[in-house]
Amino acid sequence: MNKDDMTMAILAARKTLDVSWEALSEKVGLAPVFLTSACLGMNSLKPEYADKVTEVLQLDSEVSAALQVCPNKDFAKLVPTDPLIYRFYEIVGVYGETIKELIHEKFGDGIMSAIDYTMHIDKEENPAGDRVVVTMNGKFLPYKSW
Amino acid sequence: MNKDDMTMAILAARKTLDVSWEALSEKVGLAPVFLTSACLGMNSLKPEYADKVTEVLQLDSEVSAALQVCPNKDFAKLVPTDPLIYRFYEIVGVYGETIKELIHEKFGDGIMSAIDYTMHIDKEENPAGDRVVVTMNGKFLPYKSW
Amino acid sequence: MNKDDMTMAILAARKTLDVSWEALSEKVGLAPVFLTSACLGMNSLKPEYADKVTEVLQLDSEVSAALQVCPNKDFAKLVPTDPLIYRFYEIVGVYGETIKELIHEKFGDGIMSAIDYTMHIDKEENPAGDRVVVTMNGKFLPYKSW
Amino acid sequence: MNKDDMTMAILAARKTLDVSWEALSEKVGLAPVFLTSACLGMNSLKPEYADKVTEVLQLDSEVSAALQVCPNKDFAKLVPTDPLIYRFYEIVGVYGETIKELIHEKFGDGIMSAIDYTMHIDKEENPAGDRVVVTMNGKFLPYKSW
Amino acid sequence: MNKDDMTMAILAARKTLDVSWEALSEKVGLAPVFLTSACLGMNSLKPEYADKVTEVLQLDSEVSAALQVCPNKDFAKLVPTDPLIYRFYEIVGVYGETIKELIHEKFGDGIMSAIDYTMHIDKEENPAGDRVVVTMNGKFLPYKSW
Amino acid sequence: MNKDDMTMAILAARKTLDVSWEALSEKVGLAPVFLTSACLGMNSLKPEYADKVTEVLQLDSEVSAALQVCPNKDFAKLVPTDPLIYRFYEIVGVYGETIKELIHEKFGDGIMSAIDYTMHIDKEENPAGDRVVVTMNGKFLPYKSW
Amino acid sequence: MNKDDMTMAILAARKTLDVSWEALSEKVGLAPVFLTSACLGMNSLKPEYADKVTEVLQLDSEVSAALQVCPNKDFAKLVPTDPLIYRFYEIVGVYGETIKELIHEKFGDGIMSAIDYTMHIDKEENPAGDRVVVTMNGKFLPYKSW
Amino acid sequence: MNKDDMTMAILAARKTLDVSWEALSEKVGLAPVFLTSACLGMNSLKPEYADKVTEVLQLDSEVSAALQVCPNKDFAKLVPTDPLIYRFYEIVGVYGETIKELIHEKFGDGIMSAIDYTMHIDKEENPAGDRVVVTMNGKFLPYKSW
Amino acid sequence: MNKDDMTMAILAARKTLDVSWEALSEKVGLAPVFLTSACLGMNSLKPEYADKVTEVLQLDSEVSAALQVCPNKDFAKLVPTDPLIYRFYEIVGVYGETIKELIHEKFGDGIMSAIDYTMHIDKEENPAGDRVVVTMNGKFLPYKSW
Amino acid sequence: MNKDDMTMAILAARKTLDVSWEALSEKVGLAPVFLTSACLGMNSLKPEYADKVTEVLQLDSEVSAALQVCPNKDFAKLVPTDPLIYRFYEIVGVYGETIKELIHEKFGDGIMSAIDYTMHIDKEENPAGDRVVVTMNGKFLPYKSW
Repeated sequence: MNKDDMTMAILAARKTLDVSWEALSEKVGLAPVFLTSACLGMNSLKPEYADKVTEVLQLDSEVSAALQVCPNKDFAKLVPTDPLIYRFYEIVGVYGETIKELIHEKFGDGIMSAIDYTMHIDKEENPAGDRVVVTMNGKFLPYKSW
Repeated sequence: MNKDDMTMAILAARKTLDVSWEALSEKVGLAPVFLTSACLGMNSLKPEYADKVTEVLQLDSEVSAALQVCPNKDFAKLVPTDPLIYRFYEIVGVYGETIKELIHEKFGDGIMSAIDYTMHIDKEENPAGDRVVVTMNGKFLPYKSW
Repeated sequence: MNKDDMTMAILAARKTLDVSWEALSEKVGLAPVFLTSACLGMNSLKPEYADKVTEVLQLDSEVSAALQVCPNKDFAKLVPTDPLIYRFYEIVGVYGETIKELIHEKFGDGIMSAIDYTMHIDKEENPAGDRVVVTMNGKFLPYKSW
Repeated sequence: MNKDDMTMAILAARKTLDVSWEALSEKVGLAPVFLTSACLGMNSLKPEYADKVTEVLQLDSEVSAALQVCPNKDFAKLVPTDPLIYRFYEIVGVYGETIKELIHEKFGDGIMSAIDYTMHIDKEENPAGDRVVVTMNGKFLPYKSW
Repeated sequence: MNKDDMTMAILAARKTLDVSWEALSEKVGLAPVFLTSACLGMNSLKPEYADKVTEVLQLDSEVSAALQVCPNKDFAKLVPTDPLIYRFYEIVGVYGETIKELIHEKFGDGIMSAIDYTMHIDKEENPAGDRVVVTMNGKFLPYKSW
Repeated sequence: MNKDDMTMAILAARKTLDVSWEALSEKVGLAPVFLTSACLGMNSLKPEYADKVTEVLQLDSEVSAALQVCPNKDFAKLVPTDPLIYRFYEIVGVYGETIKELIHEKFGDGIMSAIDYTMHIDKEENPAGDRVVVTMNGKFLPYKSW
Repeated sequence: MNKDDMTMAILAARKTLDVSWEALSEKVGLAPVFLTSACLGMNSLKPEYADKVTEVLQLDSEVSAALQVCPNKDFAKLVPTDPLIYRFYEIVGVYGETIKELIHEKFGDGIMSAIDYTMHIDKEENPAGDRVVVTMNGKFLPYKSW
Repeated sequence: MNKDDMTMAILAARKTLDVSWEALSEKVGLAPVFLTSACLGMNSLKPEYADKVTEVLQLDSEVSAALQVCPNKDFAKLVPTDPLIYRFYEIVGVYGETIKELIHEKFGDGIMSAIDYTMHIDKEENPAGDRVVVTMNGKFLPYKSW
Repeated sequence: MNKDDMTMAILAARKTLDVSWEALSEKVGLAPVFLTSACLGMNSLKPEYADKVTEVLQLDSEVSAALQVCPNKDFAKLVPTDPLIYRFYEIVGVYGETIKELIHEKFGDGIMSAIDYTMHIDKEENPAGDRVVVTMNGKFLPYKSW
Repeated sequence: MNKDDMTMAILAARKTLDVSWEALSEKVGLAPVFLTSACLGMNSLKPEYADKVTEVLQLDSEVSAALQVCPNKDFAKLVPTDPLIYRFYEIVGVYGETIKELIHEKFGDGIMSAIDYTMHIDKEENPAGDRVVVTMNGKFLPYKSW
């Protein structure tokens, strides 16, 4: 079973059993962003988490095995077009140099890791319109001389 | 005075007077991300803030005027190459579909605004290596039917 | 049922029952642009509208469910080639800077929302050749400092 | 004098004399969109209008001559990045097929001209936030057989 | 029946019945360029012409219906590679500015329509090698001020 | 003197002396398309024609020498954006396969040369709007086996 | 039978009958480069050669018919990646201007035809490592004035 | 002195002294293709050859030094547009797979080197039109297992 | 059997028999990098090695034959997106000029062969985190004059 | 002083004083790859190393300051064209999937860091032709769940 079929199976089971990503991640014991990304084929799960997913969604062991495979993180479009995703791309374009200036000022020369990294998405209620809060947390990796 | 010359003048003054972005933003009364992005030419400042910048950095009124101009947010490369910036682009590629799933689950069909938007960058000290914390906060904009 | 199959089903039903987009949108109670875009898979419908579509077109509930799913707005070509669509792309290229100047003059720094947005297409009869009138109406979103 | 120098001269004069695009277009007797696009180098003006622009802005006849030259409408980026302009590009991507369906339904096979074309930008005041109204009006050009 | 299947059906019938494009266009009463482009899916035919095509080629009414549908003129490659087609692309690249200069000199600011347009391809016999003669005829569309 | 400076000198002289491309080509004894393309740097002239150009335009021998140099036919944009030039690109996209079918039907396998090639642009007066007539004439080059 | 199926049939027959391209071309009476390119779908064969190919390879007349069709020379990648093919692309990049200088010096302004063209590939034995010898022979086509 | 200035100096001296590439290469004792490519900045020369070039062209030692520098072989366009150079690119596109088949048949798996490589360009006189003969000779480099 | 089916068969057999790439390469007598690349379709194997692979993995002779075919090394994305692979692309971007400087300093003008080339990947245990060691070894190929 | 001017100053001093990269790195106490990359503007140096560079090369303190600035690692071409650099790009293309398979087999899901990374280039003498040995050493960064 490849990652695409795995994702199809999970999406179908979620719909049939009416399980939200949040409910699923709570039962599995992982953050929603990480769990969802693994179910969409962009991260791999450790066996105990993969088995938990298939148990909750009543799927067979092939799905669990597929969840454990190291994924090929192949994102198809150099410029994303979906408006929701494009806005994040635009933020990187507009604020990229700013982020670079401030990280260098606070930490010195180096980067924020996208591997030793966590992300959370929350809803902030607001009478003028609810707000999306995205929190990224990545290890600072300094460039070292050798 | 165009935006490029404005940025050059500000960078030179910061160096001469040894004023960090954080110190500057504190004196001006704006968040570091927003102030830095305006100084780099990617946002405009209201007159009172623009004047405050030039006062702190001992620059003349042409710089203040340039800071108030609506910028042309022209980001040059479709795929950024600087490793620090690229990692954010990669995050959008790898987690884009996940972000979309979770925002739709929490809020319904719509997007996170990149305009009614704030961003903060913080340092989280950690014995295993300090961490970069990026907090994005954008208004949810629902698609409406008409 | 995915969005592609949904669109195929709707197009087939329209042809069989000979229902125009205008007639369909009138019966459903939505503007033709919005309804057509939802039927082509580029917007989602609220349940009551989705059910109305399937009722008018004598389609089953799977189609209604598919109409309610948040779409992935993936437009395939960075430069469109169909002459009708290309002309709109050309208008954005030729008049983009002009639109920017005038919106900034009238509203200050900010953008026109493409989300809190409506569009109408009308026919203006004219002895020298009928004319297409496109009316776009989007909320102005000001950039705010923080 | 080429078109770039012409635009620079006009922008400088507007600033010195504090003349808005709307005020300028009213005095010249042309719509703001058309006049602004000509001043930015994307359209040519007839001699009487060009002379009127230089009269109002107190510029010499070289500027008038440059305004009358047929422009090379060279728009630089295949995917525009400025958020204000990008939103219009996104509208073409998201609603392109819809526009095509509805124009064909109303007019038959053909296109909306981008040459025999006018555009107006207006402000609609609204307590929930002012709105930008863009009205495009282009001649329908039918494909003919031969 | 979509346009691709329509084209396949026509090509197969032409081969079986051994009908050339010229012979077909003569019987239908349209120019070879226009008729061929419609059969290849890049233009639509009026009902009487579409029916004539299917009558000559002994095809059923589905083909006639498909010929009448407004096509999506989606040309796949930004830079064509087939040597015959590339030469025309090269001519546009090498002579584009020249064509622009001469049309502006003869007609003023405006363009040649590609919609109100006809094209013919003829053979000129020549002892030093036969020659291809392509005649394009398009309405001049002047830019107008508004 | 390189080709760019040569073109600048010729354009300036044409303006000063008020010589149209048509008048210039008539005096030199070449077709307007060919002569204009050479003056814009996309073709080379034989010495007698180059000298004639500089004589008519009262330019010195450096310009004549530059006109005789084999040009580097470097056309800048893969997709041209000027509307007048784009329409020709669109014609190649929309009618490319049709042209290929008809040339193969009339001549067999081969191409139309873009080198052994002439082009003329004429004005056809028409009460419903004047028309641009472009005539291309290129030698047929058959593919040969070996 | 389209060109892809034709190529598959020929490759399968070559393998079953163990016939090399050289042996095949010798029996057919054509050069290996030309014959191979036709079998791969990038050139067409005259009937007598096409019939000879199918006779040698014991294939039916459909293959012969497909070999006679004018091909669509659609090469898929603008920058080839296979190392063997890329090296030729690199040669064009590195030596392109040199080739241009030398052909202009020897022949005047014009090009080498890629249509009235032959190519041969030979093996030169050499104790320091055998060498590939590629000989291209194309008619010089002079640019002519008109 | 960088490579661009070096090339300018050489081209100017060639013109002043009226020395062809062939005459220059004969005096220096290298093949025209190699010598020209080095003078255009795409290869480096050994000291004795570099000195010989500057001696023949009466240039100073800086030019010789620049000729000896390892070049950065940066070719600017992924798809060349000059017709003479494009034809070679087209040959690689059309015949690439054929060349691959025949080299593998004659030599086994491997490539033709573009580094241990020579190239010659000759003129073949022919009453039906002179012909350009390009001879490429590169060492075969087999892929080896390890 | 084509290369894709060959790879699928090998991956399935590895999983069923639980044979790692290292174990497989040890039994076959080739380095893991080379053997894996051949199994993934990017290199060819000599018959004795191909047969050994199919013997170990209990696959039939078709797989062995496919392993011996010269591959088409077609890598799909100009900019790879998988983070593991992208890091190597980034290294080439960031250190490319450095590598060039140092190879030229040590060896003179020339390149490192990617054909007469071996590569090994090792694990270096380290209490601060294990490290990946990649060793590339390629023959230096000097540019020669001719 | 920006990074470009810094690099120019260093290259000029190296040439005047005849200091190789290896000699310079030995005196400074850093590896040649790292030091060269910093001098070419792709890495930053700690103050003590930057001062040592300017001491050895007899350059002033501005160069040292520029060496300490965090660089913008902007590599210009998506597909590098210099043959030496392209070969490394090709290795990433051809062996990318292989490297991925083997790192995952040895280390689990994760990547090799390009930041916590060292690289060395050595010469291996060999009677059949000297060889370039490139050793890359990067920390393994595991993907972690959260």
